[in-house]
Amino acid sequence: MKIAILLYDNYTALDVVGPYEVLSNIPGAKIYFTAEKPGLYKNSNGIQISADFSLKEVEGPEIIVIPGGFGIDAILDNKDILEWLNSVHEKSQWTTSVCSGSLLLASAGILNGRKATTHWNRVEQFKKYPVEFVNERYVKDGKIITSAGVSAGIDMALYLTSLVVNENFAKLVQLALEYDPKPPFDSGSPEKAPREIMEKFKNSRNKKIK
Amino acid sequence: MKIAILLYDNYTALDVVGPYEVLSNIPGAKIYFTAEKPGLYKNSNGIQISADFSLKEVEGPEIIVIPGGFGIDAILDNKDILEWLNSVHEKSQWTTSVCSGSLLLASAGILNGRKATTHWNRVEQFKKYPVEFVNERYVKDGKIITSAGVSAGIDMALYLTSLVVNENFAKLVQLALEYDPKPPFDSGSPEKAPREIMEKFKNSRNKKIK
Repeated sequence: MKIAILLYDNYTALDVVGPYEVLSNIPGAKIYFTAEKPGLYKNSNGIQISADFSLKEVEGPEIIVIPGGFGIDAILDNKDILEWLNSVHEKSQWTTSVCSGSLLLASAGILNGRKATTHWNRVEQFKKYPVEFVNERYVKDGKIITSAGVSAGIDMALYLTSLVVNENFAKLVQLALEYDPKPPFDSGSPEKAPREIMEKFKNSRNKKIK
Repeated sequence: MKIAILLYDNYTALDVVGPYEVLSNIPGAKIYFTAEKPGLYKNSNGIQISADFSLKEVEGPEIIVIPGGFGIDAILDNKDILEWLNSVHEKSQWTTSVCSGSLLLASAGILNGRKATTHWNRVEQFKKYPVEFVNERYVKDGKIITSAGVSAGIDMALYLTSLVVNENFAKLVQLALEYDPKPPFDSGSPEKAPREIMEKFKNSRNKKIK
Protein backbone atom coordinates (compact mmCIF):
# COMPACT_ATOMS: atom_id res chain seq x y z
CA MET A 1 0.00 0.00 0.00
CA LYS A 2 1.49 3.27 -1.22
CA ILE A 3 1.29 6.12 1.29
CA ALA A 4 2.36 9.59 0.16
CA ILE A 5 3.31 12.20 2.75
CA LEU A 6 3.89 15.70 1.38
CA LEU A 7 6.87 17.73 2.57
CA TYR A 8 7.52 21.42 2.04
CA ASP A 9 9.53 24.09 3.83
CA ASN A 10 8.31 24.78 7.37
CA TYR A 11 6.01 21.82 7.87
CA THR A 12 5.29 20.91 11.48
CA ALA A 13 7.37 17.83 12.24
CA LEU A 14 4.81 16.11 14.48
CA ASP A 15 2.14 16.52 11.76
CA VAL A 16 4.42 14.44 9.57
CA VAL A 17 5.70 11.87 12.03
CA GLY A 18 2.50 11.18 14.00
CA PRO A 19 0.69 9.63 11.01
CA TYR A 20 3.97 8.16 9.69
CA GLU A 21 4.59 6.28 12.93
CA VAL A 22 1.07 4.82 12.92
CA LEU A 23 0.43 4.17 9.22
CA SER A 24 3.83 2.61 8.52
CA ASN A 25 2.66 -0.40 10.57
CA ILE A 26 -0.05 -1.25 8.03
CA PRO A 27 0.96 -4.55 6.41
CA GLY A 28 2.62 -3.84 3.07
CA ALA A 29 2.76 -0.11 3.70
CA LYS A 30 5.39 1.79 1.79
CA ILE A 31 5.83 5.42 2.73
CA TYR A 32 6.79 7.96 0.07
CA PHE A 33 7.99 11.28 1.41
CA THR A 34 7.40 13.53 -1.55
CA ALA A 35 8.01 17.18 -2.38
CA GLU A 36 8.31 19.49 -5.35
CA LYS A 37 12.00 18.67 -5.50
CA PRO A 38 13.65 15.74 -3.71
CA GLY A 39 16.00 16.83 -0.92
CA LEU A 40 16.07 17.83 2.71
CA TYR A 41 13.14 19.81 4.05
CA LYS A 42 13.43 21.63 7.32
CA ASN A 43 11.17 23.51 9.63
CA SER A 44 11.99 26.62 11.56
CA ASN A 45 13.19 24.67 14.59
CA GLY A 46 15.89 22.85 12.67
CA ILE A 47 14.82 19.28 11.97
CA GLN A 48 15.55 18.11 8.43
CA ILE A 49 13.56 15.25 6.88
CA SER A 50 14.41 13.84 3.49
CA ALA A 51 11.88 13.90 0.65
CA ASP A 52 13.10 11.04 -1.50
CA PHE A 53 10.62 11.43 -4.33
CA SER A 54 9.45 14.24 -6.56
CA LEU A 55 5.69 14.66 -6.95
CA LYS A 56 5.77 13.10 -10.42
CA GLU A 57 7.47 10.00 -9.04
CA VAL A 58 4.59 9.29 -6.68
CA GLU A 59 1.74 8.01 -8.84
CA GLY A 60 -1.36 6.32 -7.52
CA PRO A 61 -0.83 6.43 -3.74
CA GLU A 62 -3.70 4.72 -1.94
CA ILE A 63 -3.30 7.09 1.03
CA ILE A 64 -2.33 10.76 0.89
CA VAL A 65 -1.27 12.70 4.00
CA ILE A 66 -0.97 16.50 3.92
CA PRO A 67 0.71 17.78 7.08
CA GLY A 68 0.28 21.36 8.28
CA GLY A 69 2.74 23.99 9.37
CA PHE A 70 3.63 27.66 8.98
CA GLY A 71 4.85 26.92 5.50
CA ILE A 72 1.43 25.83 4.28
CA ASP A 73 0.47 29.40 3.34
CA ALA A 74 3.38 29.61 0.93
CA ILE A 75 2.14 26.62 -1.09
CA LEU A 76 -1.62 27.27 -1.10
CA ASP A 77 -1.38 28.66 -4.64
CA ASN A 78 1.42 26.41 -5.86
CA LYS A 79 0.17 25.10 -9.21
CA ASP A 80 2.41 22.03 -9.37
CA ILE A 81 1.42 20.88 -5.89
CA LEU A 82 -2.30 21.58 -6.41
CA GLU A 83 -2.27 19.77 -9.76
CA TRP A 84 -0.52 16.75 -8.27
CA LEU A 85 -2.85 16.73 -5.28
CA ASN A 86 -5.98 16.83 -7.43
CA SER A 87 -4.64 14.14 -9.70
CA VAL A 88 -3.66 11.69 -6.92
CA HIS A 89 -6.80 12.47 -4.92
CA GLU A 90 -8.92 11.35 -7.88
CA LYS A 91 -7.72 7.76 -7.50
CA SER A 92 -6.78 7.61 -3.80
CA GLN A 93 -8.56 5.39 -1.33
CA TRP A 94 -8.04 7.93 1.44
CA THR A 95 -7.05 11.59 1.31
CA THR A 96 -6.09 13.01 4.71
CA SER A 97 -4.67 16.09 6.37
CA VAL A 98 -3.30 17.14 9.73
CA CYS A 99 -3.67 20.60 11.26
CA SER A 100 -3.44 23.43 8.70
CA GLY A 101 -2.80 20.83 5.98
CA SER A 102 -6.56 20.97 5.42
CA LEU A 103 -6.06 24.45 3.95
CA LEU A 104 -4.21 22.89 1.02
CA LEU A 105 -7.05 20.42 0.46
CA ALA A 106 -9.48 23.34 0.59
CA SER A 107 -7.40 25.40 -1.79
CA ALA A 108 -7.38 22.47 -4.23
CA GLY A 109 -11.18 22.43 -4.11
CA ILE A 110 -11.16 18.96 -2.62
CA LEU A 111 -13.16 20.05 0.42
CA ASN A 112 -15.86 21.97 -1.46
CA GLY A 113 -19.16 21.29 0.32
CA ARG A 114 -17.47 18.81 2.65
CA LYS A 115 -17.35 18.53 6.42
CA ALA A 116 -13.79 19.04 7.65
CA THR A 117 -11.61 20.33 10.46
CA THR A 118 -8.28 22.11 11.05
CA HIS A 119 -6.07 23.58 13.82
CA TRP A 120 -8.24 25.73 16.10
CA ASN A 121 -6.10 28.78 15.32
CA ARG A 122 -6.73 28.38 11.58
CA VAL A 123 -10.53 28.17 11.70
CA GLU A 124 -11.16 31.74 10.58
CA GLN A 125 -8.90 31.28 7.55
CA PHE A 126 -10.41 27.86 6.85
CA LYS A 127 -13.95 29.20 6.79
CA LYS A 128 -13.12 31.44 3.83
CA TYR A 129 -13.33 28.31 1.71
CA PRO A 130 -16.67 26.67 0.86
CA VAL A 131 -16.18 24.09 3.61
CA GLU A 132 -18.36 23.07 6.53
CA PHE A 133 -16.04 23.37 9.54
CA VAL A 134 -16.65 20.79 12.27
CA ASN A 135 -15.01 21.16 15.68
CA GLU A 136 -13.87 17.54 16.17
CA ARG A 137 -10.55 15.77 16.69
CA TYR A 138 -10.88 14.31 13.18
CA VAL A 139 -13.64 14.38 10.61
CA LYS A 140 -14.43 11.77 7.96
CA ASP A 141 -16.45 12.81 4.94
CA GLY A 142 -16.44 10.09 2.31
CA LYS A 143 -12.85 9.15 1.63
CA ILE A 144 -11.50 12.39 3.11
CA ILE A 145 -10.32 12.55 6.73
CA THR A 146 -9.09 15.85 8.14
CA SER A 147 -7.75 16.26 11.64
CA ALA A 148 -7.34 19.04 14.16
CA GLY A 149 -4.00 20.55 15.22
CA VAL A 150 -0.63 18.75 15.18
CA SER A 151 -1.03 15.87 17.67
CA ALA A 152 -4.51 15.05 16.29
CA GLY A 153 -2.78 13.35 13.37
CA ILE A 154 -1.97 10.42 15.67
CA ASP A 155 -5.64 9.90 16.57
CA MET A 156 -6.68 10.30 12.93
CA ALA A 157 -4.08 7.79 11.75
CA LEU A 158 -5.20 5.19 14.28
CA TYR A 159 -8.78 5.63 13.12
CA LEU A 160 -7.68 5.36 9.49
CA THR A 161 -5.71 2.20 10.33
CA SER A 162 -8.88 0.65 11.73
CA LEU A 163 -10.66 1.41 8.45
CA VAL A 164 -7.84 0.17 6.22
CA VAL A 165 -7.07 -3.02 8.21
CA ASN A 166 -9.43 -3.52 11.16
CA GLU A 167 -10.03 -2.34 14.71
CA ASN A 168 -7.97 -5.06 16.34
CA PHE A 169 -4.97 -4.20 14.24
CA ALA A 170 -5.33 -0.50 15.09
CA LYS A 171 -5.42 -1.47 18.78
CA LEU A 172 -2.25 -3.49 18.30
CA VAL A 173 -0.52 -0.44 16.82
CA GLN A 174 -1.77 1.73 19.68
CA LEU A 175 -0.28 -0.77 22.13
CA ALA A 176 3.04 -0.86 20.27
CA LEU A 177 3.24 2.94 20.46
CA GLU A 178 2.13 2.78 24.11
CA TYR A 179 -0.35 5.47 23.14
CA ASP A 180 -2.04 5.81 26.49
CA PRO A 181 -1.70 9.58 26.71
CA LYS A 182 -1.39 11.27 30.08
CA PRO A 183 -0.58 14.94 29.46
CA PRO A 184 0.58 16.60 32.69
CA PHE A 185 -1.87 19.46 32.04
CA ASP A 186 -5.33 19.80 30.54
CA SER A 187 -4.74 22.73 28.26
CA GLY A 188 -4.89 21.18 24.80
CA SER A 189 -7.84 23.06 23.34
CA PRO A 190 -9.22 26.61 23.49
CA GLU A 191 -12.19 25.29 25.50
CA LYS A 192 -9.89 23.79 28.14
CA ALA A 193 -6.98 26.22 28.28
CA PRO A 194 -7.14 28.80 31.09
CA ARG A 195 -8.16 32.23 29.83
CA GLU A 196 -4.77 33.71 30.68
CA ILE A 197 -3.11 31.10 28.45
CA MET A 198 -5.39 32.04 25.57
CA GLU A 199 -4.42 35.68 26.07
CA LYS A 200 -0.76 34.74 26.08
CA PHE A 201 -1.26 32.77 22.90
CA LYS A 202 -2.82 35.74 21.14
CA ASN A 203 0.08 37.93 22.21
CA SER A 204 2.74 35.46 21.14
CA ARG A 205 1.77 34.95 17.53
CA ASN A 206 5.12 34.36 16.02
CA LYS A 207 6.92 31.74 14.04
CA LYS A 208 6.83 29.36 16.96
CA ILE A 209 3.04 29.03 17.04
CA LYS A 210 1.46 26.85 14.36
CA MET B 1 19.48 26.46 25.60
CA LYS B 2 21.31 23.64 23.86
CA ILE B 3 19.20 20.49 23.42
CA ALA B 4 20.93 17.38 22.06
CA ILE B 5 18.84 14.61 20.48
CA LEU B 6 20.74 11.43 19.64
CA LEU B 7 20.15 9.71 16.30
CA TYR B 8 21.26 6.22 15.26
CA ASP B 9 20.05 3.66 12.74
CA ASN B 10 16.56 2.38 13.43
CA TYR B 11 15.42 4.90 16.02
CA THR B 12 11.66 5.23 16.40
CA ALA B 13 10.69 8.46 14.64
CA LEU B 14 7.99 9.52 17.11
CA ASP B 15 10.45 9.08 20.01
CA VAL B 16 12.56 11.73 18.29
CA VAL B 17 9.89 14.11 17.05
CA GLY B 18 7.52 14.09 20.05
CA PRO B 19 10.08 15.74 22.39
CA TYR B 20 11.50 17.80 19.49
CA GLU B 21 8.10 19.33 18.73
CA VAL B 22 7.56 20.27 22.39
CA LEU B 23 11.04 21.28 23.54
CA SER B 24 11.86 23.38 20.48
CA ASN B 25 9.31 25.90 21.76
CA ILE B 26 11.40 26.69 24.84
CA PRO B 27 12.64 30.26 24.45
CA GLY B 28 16.19 30.24 23.12
CA ALA B 29 16.12 26.49 22.44
CA LYS B 30 18.54 25.26 19.85
CA ILE B 31 18.15 21.62 18.86
CA TYR B 32 21.23 19.59 17.91
CA PHE B 33 20.51 16.33 16.14
CA THR B 34 23.67 14.42 16.80
CA ALA B 35 25.06 11.01 15.85
CA GLU B 36 28.34 9.16 15.62
CA LYS B 37 28.75 10.49 12.11
CA PRO B 38 26.76 13.39 10.64
CA GLY B 39 24.41 12.31 7.86
CA LEU B 40 20.98 10.88 7.22
CA TYR B 41 19.64 8.35 9.71
CA LYS B 42 16.70 6.20 8.79
CA ASN B 43 14.45 3.73 10.49
CA SER B 44 13.06 0.55 9.07
CA ASN B 45 9.95 2.26 7.75
CA GLY B 46 11.84 4.67 5.54
CA ILE B 47 11.94 8.10 7.15
CA GLN B 48 15.33 9.81 7.03
CA ILE B 49 16.25 12.52 9.52
CA SER B 50 19.48 14.46 9.27
CA ALA B 51 22.02 14.40 12.08
CA ASP B 52 23.85 17.64 11.50
CA PHE B 53 26.43 17.26 14.23
CA SER B 54 28.90 14.62 15.31
CA LEU B 55 28.99 13.74 19.00
CA LYS B 56 32.17 15.72 19.53
CA GLU B 57 30.57 18.83 18.08
CA VAL B 58 27.86 18.83 20.73
CA GLU B 59 29.48 19.98 23.94
CA GLY B 60 27.63 21.02 27.04
CA PRO B 61 23.99 20.51 26.06
CA GLU B 62 21.67 21.57 28.87
CA ILE B 63 19.13 18.94 27.83
CA ILE B 64 19.88 15.47 26.45
CA VAL B 65 17.20 13.33 24.79
CA ILE B 66 17.84 9.65 24.04
CA PRO B 67 15.08 8.22 21.82
CA GLY B 68 14.34 4.50 21.65
CA GLY B 69 13.90 2.11 18.77
CA PHE B 70 14.88 -1.33 17.48
CA GLY B 71 18.32 0.02 16.78
CA ILE B 72 19.04 0.75 20.45
CA ASP B 73 20.36 -2.77 21.06
CA ALA B 74 23.07 -2.26 18.45
CA ILE B 75 24.50 0.75 20.30
CA LEU B 76 24.23 -0.41 23.92
CA ASP B 77 27.93 -1.29 23.92
CA ASN B 78 29.09 1.47 21.61
CA LYS B 79 32.08 3.00 23.41
CA ASP B 80 32.04 6.34 21.60
CA ILE B 81 28.37 6.90 22.29
CA LEU B 82 28.60 5.76 25.94
CA GLU B 83 31.63 7.96 26.54
CA TRP B 84 29.91 10.99 25.00
CA LEU B 85 26.73 10.31 26.96
CA ASN B 86 28.55 10.04 30.27
CA SER B 87 30.53 13.15 29.54
CA VAL B 88 27.56 15.34 28.58
CA HIS B 89 25.39 13.90 31.34
CA GLU B 90 27.91 15.07 33.89
CA LYS B 91 27.16 18.71 33.12
CA SER B 92 23.60 18.52 31.76
CA GLN B 93 20.67 20.16 33.50
CA TRP B 94 18.37 17.37 32.36
CA THR B 95 19.10 13.94 30.93
CA THR B 96 16.05 12.26 29.41
CA SER B 97 15.00 9.23 27.43
CA VAL B 98 11.97 7.96 25.54
CA CYS B 99 10.91 4.31 25.29
CA SER B 100 13.84 1.89 25.02
CA GLY B 101 16.23 4.86 25.03
CA SER B 102 16.42 4.28 28.78
CA LEU B 103 18.41 1.12 28.05
CA LEU B 104 21.25 3.27 26.78
CA LEU B 105 21.17 5.37 29.95
CA ALA B 106 21.20 2.14 31.96
CA SER B 107 24.05 0.72 29.92
CA ALA B 108 26.05 3.89 30.56
CA GLY B 109 25.53 3.39 34.30
CA ILE B 110 23.57 6.61 34.54
CA LEU B 111 20.51 4.89 36.01
CA ASN B 112 22.36 2.86 38.65
CA GLY B 113 20.17 2.84 41.76
CA ARG B 114 17.70 5.22 40.11
CA LYS B 115 13.96 5.04 39.60
CA ALA B 116 13.20 4.89 35.88
CA THR B 117 10.84 3.57 33.22
CA THR B 118 10.84 2.21 29.65
CA HIS B 119 8.55 0.73 26.96
CA TRP B 120 6.38 -1.99 28.55
CA ASN B 121 7.78 -4.57 26.15
CA ARG B 122 11.36 -3.80 27.29
CA VAL B 123 10.82 -4.14 31.03
CA GLU B 124 12.37 -7.59 31.34
CA GLN B 125 15.51 -6.45 29.53
CA PHE B 126 15.58 -3.20 31.55
CA LYS B 127 15.45 -5.02 34.87
CA LYS B 128 18.76 -6.73 34.14
CA TYR B 129 20.40 -3.40 34.98
CA PRO B 130 20.65 -2.16 38.59
CA VAL B 131 17.64 0.10 38.09
CA GLU B 132 14.39 0.43 40.00
CA PHE B 133 11.72 0.07 37.33
CA VAL B 134 8.60 2.19 37.91
CA ASN B 135 5.47 1.65 35.84
CA GLU B 136 4.59 5.27 35.11
CA ARG B 137 4.17 7.41 32.01
CA TYR B 138 7.38 9.25 32.94
CA VAL B 139 9.64 9.11 35.97
CA LYS B 140 11.81 11.90 37.38
CA ASP B 141 14.73 10.98 39.60
CA GLY B 142 16.93 13.98 40.24
CA LYS B 143 17.84 15.48 36.89
CA ILE B 144 16.98 12.32 34.99
CA ILE B 145 13.56 11.87 33.39
CA THR B 146 12.76 8.62 31.60
CA SER B 147 9.51 7.97 29.79
CA ALA B 148 7.45 4.97 28.73
CA GLY B 149 6.95 3.84 25.13
CA VAL B 150 7.11 6.07 22.04
CA SER B 151 4.20 8.53 22.49
CA ALA B 152 5.09 9.02 26.19
CA GLY B 153 7.90 11.30 25.04
CA ILE B 154 5.32 14.01 24.35
CA ASP B 155 3.98 13.89 27.91
CA MET B 156 7.50 13.80 29.34
CA ALA B 157 8.60 16.79 27.24
CA LEU B 158 5.61 18.88 28.35
CA TYR B 159 6.45 18.08 31.94
CA LEU B 160 10.09 18.96 31.33
CA THR B 161 9.04 22.23 29.70
CA SER B 162 7.11 23.12 32.84
CA LEU B 163 10.27 22.54 34.90
CA VAL B 164 12.58 24.45 32.54
CA VAL B 165 10.25 27.42 31.94
CA ASN B 166 7.03 27.21 33.97
CA GLU B 167 3.63 25.52 33.98
CA ASN B 168 1.86 28.28 32.10
CA PHE B 169 4.37 28.12 29.29
CA ALA B 170 4.00 24.34 29.08
CA LYS B 171 0.24 24.80 28.86
CA LEU B 172 0.75 27.29 26.04
CA VAL B 173 2.81 24.74 24.12
CA GLN B 174 0.17 22.06 24.75
CA LEU B 175 -2.43 24.43 23.30
CA ALA B 176 -0.27 25.22 20.27
CA LEU B 177 0.09 21.49 19.56
CA GLU B 178 -3.64 21.02 20.23
CA TYR B 179 -2.55 18.17 22.46
CA ASP B 180 -5.99 17.17 23.66
CA PRO B 181 -5.64 13.47 22.84
CA LYS B 182 -8.70 11.43 21.91
CA PRO B 183 -7.49 8.02 20.74
CA PRO B 184 -10.32 6.15 18.98
CA PHE B 185 -9.53 3.08 21.10
CA ASP B 186 -8.37 2.46 24.67
CA SER B 187 -5.64 -0.05 24.00
CA GLY B 188 -2.48 1.88 24.76
CA SER B 189 -1.08 -0.20 27.62
CA PRO B 190 -0.88 -3.89 28.52
CA GLU B 191 -3.35 -3.26 31.35
CA LYS B 192 -5.92 -1.79 28.96
CA ALA B 193 -5.42 -3.80 25.77
CA PRO B 194 -7.82 -6.72 25.26
CA ARG B 195 -6.21 -10.09 26.00
CA GLU B 196 -6.48 -11.16 22.36
CA ILE B 197 -4.50 -8.08 21.33
CA MET B 198 -1.77 -8.97 23.81
CA GLU B 199 -1.64 -12.48 22.35
CA LYS B 200 -1.41 -11.06 18.85
CA PHE B 201 1.39 -8.79 19.99
CA LYS B 202 3.38 -11.70 21.38
CA ASN B 203 2.94 -13.58 18.13
CA SER B 204 3.93 -10.67 15.94
CA ARG B 205 7.29 -9.83 17.42
CA ASN B 206 9.06 -8.60 14.40
CA LYS B 207 10.84 -5.52 13.20
CA LYS B 208 7.60 -3.56 13.21
CA ILE B 209 7.11 -3.77 16.98
CA LYS B 210 9.24 -1.45 19.12
